[in-house]
Amino acid sequence: MNHQEALTSYIAAFVAELVQTGITDVVVSPGSRSTPMAMVMAEYPDLNVHINVDERSAAFFALGMAKASGHPVALLCTSGTAAANYYPAVVEAYYSRVPLIVLTADRPHELRDVGAPQAIDQIHLYGKHAKWFVEMPIPEKSDEMERYVRSVCARAAATAQAAPAGPVHLNFPFREPLVPNLEKEDLFTLKSREAGYVAIEQGVPTLHTTQIEKIGEQLKRHQNGIIVCGSLEEDGFADAVVALSNHLQFPIIADPLSQLRSGKHDGTNIIDTYDTFLRNEDAKKALKPEVIIRFGAMPISKALTIFMKENQDAEQWIIDGGAGWRDPSLLSTSMIYCNEKSFCDAISSHVGVRPVSDYLNKWREVNAFTKENLMKIRETSELSEGRLFHLLSDMLPEGATLFVGNSMPIRDVDSFFHFNEKSIKIMANRGANGIDGTISTALGASTVLQPLYLVVGDLTFFHDLNGLMAAKLYNLNIKIIVINNNGGGIFSFLPQSNHPKNFEKLFGTPLDLKFEHAIHMYNGTYDLITDWNHFTSSFVQNLENDGLSVMEITTNRDTNLKEHRDLWNFVSQEISRLLKG
Amino acid sequence: MNHQEALTSYIAAFVAELVQTGITDVVVSPGSRSTPMAMVMAEYPDLNVHINVDERSAAFFALGMAKASGHPVALLCTSGTAAANYYPAVVEAYYSRVPLIVLTADRPHELRDVGAPQAIDQIHLYGKHAKWFVEMPIPEKSDEMERYVRSVCARAAATAQAAPAGPVHLNFPFREPLVPNLEKEDLFTLKSREAGYVAIEQGVPTLHTTQIEKIGEQLKRHQNGIIVCGSLEEDGFADAVVALSNHLQFPIIADPLSQLRSGKHDGTNIIDTYDTFLRNEDAKKALKPEVIIRFGAMPISKALTIFMKENQDAEQWIIDGGAGWRDPSLLSTSMIYCNEKSFCDAISSHVGVRPVSDYLNKWREVNAFTKENLMKIRETSELSEGRLFHLLSDMLPEGATLFVGNSMPIRDVDSFFHFNEKSIKIMANRGANGIDGTISTALGASTVLQPLYLVVGDLTFFHDLNGLMAAKLYNLNIKIIVINNNGGGIFSFLPQSNHPKNFEKLFGTPLDLKFEHAIHMYNGTYDLITDWNHFTSSFVQNLENDGLSVMEITTNRDTNLKEHRDLWNFVSQEISRLLKG
Repeated sequence: MNHQEALTSYIAAFVAELVQTGITDVVVSPGSRSTPMAMVMAEYPDLNVHINVDERSAAFFALGMAKASGHPVALLCTSGTAAANYYPAVVEAYYSRVPLIVLTADRPHELRDVGAPQAIDQIHLYGKHAKWFVEMPIPEKSDEMERYVRSVCARAAATAQAAPAGPVHLNFPFREPLVPNLEKEDLFTLKSREAGYVAIEQGVPTLHTTQIEKIGEQLKRHQNGIIVCGSLEEDGFADAVVALSNHLQFPIIADPLSQLRSGKHDGTNIIDTYDTFLRNEDAKKALKPEVIIRFGAMPISKALTIFMKENQDAEQWIIDGGAGWRDPSLLSTSMIYCNEKSFCDAISSHVGVRPVSDYLNKWREVNAFTKENLMKIRETSELSEGRLFHLLSDMLPEGATLFVGNSMPIRDVDSFFHFNEKSIKIMANRGANGIDGTISTALGASTVLQPLYLVVGDLTFFHDLNGLMAAKLYNLNIKIIVINNNGGGIFSFLPQSNHPKNFEKLFGTPLDLKFEHAIHMYNGTYDLITDWNHFTSSFVQNLENDGLSVMEITTNRDTNLKEHRDLWNFVSQEISRLLKG
Repeated sequence: MNHQEALTSYIAAFVAELVQTGITDVVVSPGSRSTPMAMVMAEYPDLNVHINVDERSAAFFALGMAKASGHPVALLCTSGTAAANYYPAVVEAYYSRVPLIVLTADRPHELRDVGAPQAIDQIHLYGKHAKWFVEMPIPEKSDEMERYVRSVCARAAATAQAAPAGPVHLNFPFREPLVPNLEKEDLFTLKSREAGYVAIEQGVPTLHTTQIEKIGEQLKRHQNGIIVCGSLEEDGFADAVVALSNHLQFPIIADPLSQLRSGKHDGTNIIDTYDTFLRNEDAKKALKPEVIIRFGAMPISKALTIFMKENQDAEQWIIDGGAGWRDPSLLSTSMIYCNEKSFCDAISSHVGVRPVSDYLNKWREVNAFTKENLMKIRETSELSEGRLFHLLSDMLPEGATLFVGNSMPIRDVDSFFHFNEKSIKIMANRGANGIDGTISTALGASTVLQPLYLVVGDLTFFHDLNGLMAAKLYNLNIKIIVINNNGGGIFSFLPQSNHPKNFEKLFGTPLDLKFEHAIHMYNGTYDLITDWNHFTSSFVQNLENDGLSVMEITTNRDTNLKEHRDLWNFVSQEISRLLKG
C-alpha cells in the first residue's frame, strides 16, 4: 500500500465526512505541512475554502462565521507557531460557547522533540480551552482506519455543538511527500454510509415535571422578582422569556447581548436603562427584588452587578442550558441546568397568569422616565460616544447586525442603545472580553449576516488591523465606525486616572495613527466625520455602499468621561426627584 | 493590614528584586488587571518600560531584545486573551532558547471559572512551552511573603537563563482595588539583602578528563571528518571551533546562524557554499565523511541534511550545552552534553595539531570554486532575490546586524551570503521557524544592536505589520528590505507547484498590497526600488537615515524559481567538470 494512496484516502474520507456533518466553511492559512488537507479540501466541490494568511485573524474569522450562523466552522493551519496563533480565538470560542473545529497539521512522531524545523509540542496545545482533543493517527489505508477517521470527524462536529458549544482540536501528523493524488477516481465517494458515518442526536437538558412543580411553587411565593438576561443565543428564547415575564409579572433586565433589546417580541416588560438608573440609591431602594432569575452570561453592566450584590438576600436562580457556573458574584441560591427556552415554557405553564404587579409597574415607570431623560445625550453638539450609540438604535436599518468592540463601545451600547422593534442583532466577543480579533470576528459574521456594522475604539481597531485583509481579498461588505479617542478611553473611568504621573504612558497609550492610510491599503472607502450632519449624511450614503467602508469619529477621552458623568448625575437627580416627589 | 499596603509591598518587593537580578527592560501591554504591577514598574527609576498594545507583537519585541542581548526581558499583560496572544513568541523563545520572564495578571481564585469577565484558565497557559510555571499567591504583607516573592523572582531569572535558556511564566492573582500606594516612603528599599535575595550561580556542563580522552581518541581514528555548526550563540565559540578545526583538520560547515560566516576569526576552513555544491553527486562522493561533529541547532540547508542522511554510516557526534535532542535525522552515534566552547578547547588540547589533510583541502577547493561560480548571480540584470543576498555581504556596514525572515530569505542567505571579515551578526527566528512576529523581534533586537537590517518577504512583512507600531512610538532605527513577490515564494520550490489547479489560491496567496500606505501610517520613509542602481544609491543614502526606513523590491515567483534552478544547474555542471577533469 503506497504512502500517497493512504494519505489520499484517509484525508478524503475525513473531508467527505466533514461535509456530511454539515460543515460548509473552512478557513485555511497557507503552509507546507497542511498541504494534503488543504489540497483535498479545495478539491471538494461543496466546501467553501477561505484563505487567511494571519492565523490569529483566520481563527477569529472562523469564530465570527460560527457565532453568526450557529454552526461549526473548521480551521486548518500548518505546524508550529501558526497553530499557537489560533490560541486567542480558541479561548474566546471556549468561553463564548462557539463551535469550532480546529485542524492542525503536525510533524509525524519521529520528527517531534528532536530539533526538527517547525515542530512544536502540539499535543493538547490549547490546554483546557479545547473541549476535546484528538491526536490523529498517521494516515493508513484500511477499512478500519476509514471508519475511525469518519467517526472522529462526526464526533468532533457533534462535540463542538453540544451545549455548551466550543472548540475541538484534532492534530494530524503527516509524513512527506505531502501531495495527495487528486486524480483518484471517486475521491470523495464514501463506500458505505453515504449520508454520514454516524448520526449524532444530542438531547438538551430539560427538567422533570416534579422539578418544574417544585421550582414553580417556590417562585410563586414572591411578588417582587426580576428576570436578568445576559448574552444568550437560543431560538425562540425571546418570546418564551417575554411570556414568562408576563406570567410572573417580573420585569426583564435585558443586556444588549440577550438579543432582547431589538426584535418583534413584546417590549412592554423590557428594561433597558438599568445601567443608568441602578446608579441611583433611591431607585435601588424602590426596586429591591426578592428573587432574581438569571439567563445567559453575566450581564455587562457594573451598576446591575452591584445591585445584585447588594441584594444578596434575594433568591438567585441561574438557568444554564450548558454546564457552566456563571456566577462570579457567588450569589446563586439555585443552579438549574436546563435549556433556557424549555424552562421558560414549563414555568409559564405552571404558574399561570398572575395579576398586574405594582413592582413591575415601578420598574417600567423608572425605565421610561430614565429613557426620556437620557434623550439629553442628543443635545451634545460635539461628536460624542454616548450620542453615537443613542443615534444608532434609530439609524440602523431593519435586519442589521451591530458588532460592538469591547472596552467602552459595549458599555455605551448598554447605556444608550434602547429597545426598538427592528430585528437588530447585537454581537460582541464577550467570552473573554479581549480587544483582539474584533475586525476578523465581525468580518466572519458579515459573510452570514448583512448588513453588518462594526463599532470599535481605536486600540481595538489597531489590534486586528490585519483582519481587514479578508475584506479586501473577498470583497466583504462591512461598515465600520471607528471611535478614535487616541488611546484607551476606559481607563479614564478607572481609579488609576487619579494618578496622572504615568497614566498616559501606561493606560492612555495614544497611538496617533492616521488609519486612513491602512483603509486605502485594504481598498476601503474612508470618511473622517467632522460633525453630526456629516455623520448622518455619510451614514445614509453608506447604506448603499458595498465593500469595506470606514467612518472615523474623533472624540476626546476627558470630554467623554465628563459627558458620561454629567449625564448620569443629571439623570440620577431627576430620578430621585421622581421617586421622592 | 490593609489591602493596598499588602498589594504595594508585595509588588514592590518583586519589582525591586527583578531589577536586582539584572533585568533592565520590561514590555508592558496596557490592561486593567495588571494595573498594580504596571504602575509600580513605571515608578522604578532603573527599569525601562516599553509599551506595546498588541500583545503578540509585545512578546516578540521582548524576544528580540532578549535574543540580541542574551539577557532575560520581562513581559507584562492583563488577564484573558491578552495572555494567549503571547503564545507564539513564548513557543519561539522555548525552542530558540531565549530567556523571557512572562508575567500575567489574573483574577483571584474566587473569580475563576465562574463566568467573570476576562477570566480564563491561566494555570499552565503555555503548556510545556514554559520552562517553569508558578501560580503566585494573593498579595499579603509579611516577611515570609516578601522572602517568597523575592526568591521566586530570583529563581525565575536564573531558570530563564540556565542552559537551555527559555521562557518562564509567573501568574499573579490580583484583587480590586488595583491601585497601589506609590506615595509609600522607601517603596523599593529592600529591608534585607539589598543586593539581591539569593545569588544563583549556574554551572555549565563540562566533561571529565577521562571523557575527553575517550572522545579525543575516538576522533583521532578518523582523517575525514567535518564540523557542522548550526545556530549557536556562545561567547568565544568562533575562535574555539576554528582552533578545533585546525587541530583536527576538519572543515567547518557554517550555517548562517552559527555566527561563523562573518567575523574576525580565521575563515580559512569555513565552508559557506555547501548548500549549492552538496546538490552535486560528484561533490558528495568526493567529500564523503567518516565522522561528523555537530554544534548548535540543526542547520537550515536541505542539501546538507540530505548529505548527512546519505552518510549515515559516519559517526555523528552532537555537542549540546543545553539538554535537548537536536537530531531530527536520528543519526547521532553520540550525544554529548557539554558546553560547546569548553568541548572545543578540551578536544583541541587533547588531539594536538594534525598534519595538513587532503580531505580538508578538497572541501576548501570545492568551496572556493563554487563561490567563484556563484558570482554569476551578480549578472542578473532584473531585480532578483539571489543577487540581493549576494550583494548584502558586500554592502552591509561593519558591525551591522542582519535579521532575516523565514521561508525564502533565510534560505537565500544560506545560499548567497558568504564569508566576510566584518562583524556581521545574522539573526532569525529559527526556534519554530514561523513567519509571525518577525518585525517585532527585529525591532526588539534593534534596541540593542545597531545598525540593524531586516530582510523579509511580503507575507512575513504582512503577518506582523502591527509590529511597526513600536518603531513609530519609540523612534527606533531599523532598515527594512521587503522582497515582494506577492505571495508565498517558497511553495514554488515544493512539489505542490506541479498541481496548478488550486495552487495560487492555497499556496501562492497573492495579497496585492501597497505597503507604502502602511509605512506612511507608521511615519517611515519608503522607497520602491526600480533597478539595481536605484537599490545601491538608496542603500547608501539609507546608511545615514534614522528611524524606520523601508525599501521594497518587487520580484516574480516564477522567475525566481527559474533563476535559482538555472544557477544551481550551471554551478553543478561546473563542479562536475572540476572534479572529473
